[in-house]
Amino acid sequence: MILRSAAASPYVRKVLIAAAVLGLDQRIDVVPATVADPNDTVHDQNPLGKIPTLILDDGSALYDSRVIVEYLDHLAGGGRIIPRDPAARFAALRLQALGDGIADAAVLIVYEARWRTPERCEPRWTDHQAGKIDRALVVLEASAGLKGVAQIGEIAVAAALGYLDLRLGGRWRDRHPRLVGFLDDFAAAVPAFEATRAD
Amino acid sequence: MILRSAAASPYVRKVLIAAAVLGLDQRIDVVPATVADPNDTVHDQNPLGKIPTLILDDGSALYDSRVIVEYLDHLAGGGRIIPRDPAARFAALRLQALGDGIADAAVLIVYEARWRTPERCEPRWTDHQAGKIDRALVVLEASAGLKGVAQIGEIAVAAALGYLDLRLGGRWRDRHPRLVGFLDDFAAAVPAFEATRAD
Repeated sequence: MILRSAAASPYVRKVLIAAAVLGLDQRIDVVPATVADPNDTVHDQNPLGKIPTLILDDGSALYDSRVIVEYLDHLAGGGRIIPRDPAARFAALRLQALGDGIADAAVLIVYEARWRTPERCEPRWTDHQAGKIDRALVVLEASAGLKGVAQIGEIAVAAALGYLDLRLGGRWRDRHPRLVGFLDDFAAAVPAFEATRAD
Repeated sequence: MILRSAAASPYVRKVLIAAAVLGLDQRIDVVPATVADPNDTVHDQNPLGKIPTLILDDGSALYDSRVIVEYLDHLAGGGRIIPRDPAARFAALRLQALGDGIADAAVLIVYEARWRTPERCEPRWTDHQAGKIDRALVVLEASAGLKGVAQIGEIAVAAALGYLDLRLGGRWRDRHPRLVGFLDDFAAAVPAFEATRAD
């Protein structure tokens, strides 16, 4: 299989960590894509022009990251990183949604500076996105449900926190010592976390 | 259960159509939320401050729309709008991701005008989002996989097309006659589509 990717993407990192946890990383060739280049073949593979996109052995493509991680879990037998038990499953999927939502807001903050001249930046918009991140971190900090285990919720949160470190200067760390501890525990338990760190 | 909602949201509409198809709509009270108001309780229920958010009978909250539709499918016995067979399941989930991706791009175009003065709008950004929609519609128009049935992929695409009609003037219709036919068939087969149309 081929994973169209970009090293800095938190969604790609989530997929790569999931693949490693599931023992599937050796079956995936990572091929970078430049989503801002309209001639990149990723736009033919995924009309939304987004990464990650997974190209299966039959040439068909799967997206987005949530669909890919469920597919990888299925390939590995099912129920490995996405629990089958309903209560555990929906808690894990909600935690993934929270991690993805932090990443979504952070990406919009990063894109604001990347796509616009300074005079076209809108502080109300980036403040609105930062508010989502701040509230989500407070909830996670207070949560007893976050453990240093490699299930999809924790993987998504770890990937999102890694993106805050990479692109937003790690300012989340000062006020969230339990989350720092979580990420340290996660990194110790899941070597793929450090192995997928972008420069 | 309580669904925090806004009538125009394509993700809320997806959930409401899913609930109706599954026969669960009578168990859900729809309570509007104003996500732009930082004092709205939706921010306590979902730190990302997004709709739809589903409040369960035990007071816990589920988000986002994909997690909610899978939960509703589970409540209805499972495999009803999200197939269990792997090939059908991943095709349906990819189609949902495509519908959601169209909605995501359209929402960003709408928000550009809503959050910014004209001089802070960036045409390269909205063109980039419009390109995602255009390519996705071309793929859907050529797709033989789209049928007027009420599974999650078709529900998501119908909700996204409805949002293009509501907010972007329905300009997609001229060049995509088969998609117009799909939406007509879907609306005929699924009364909840018209019942959830926003003014």
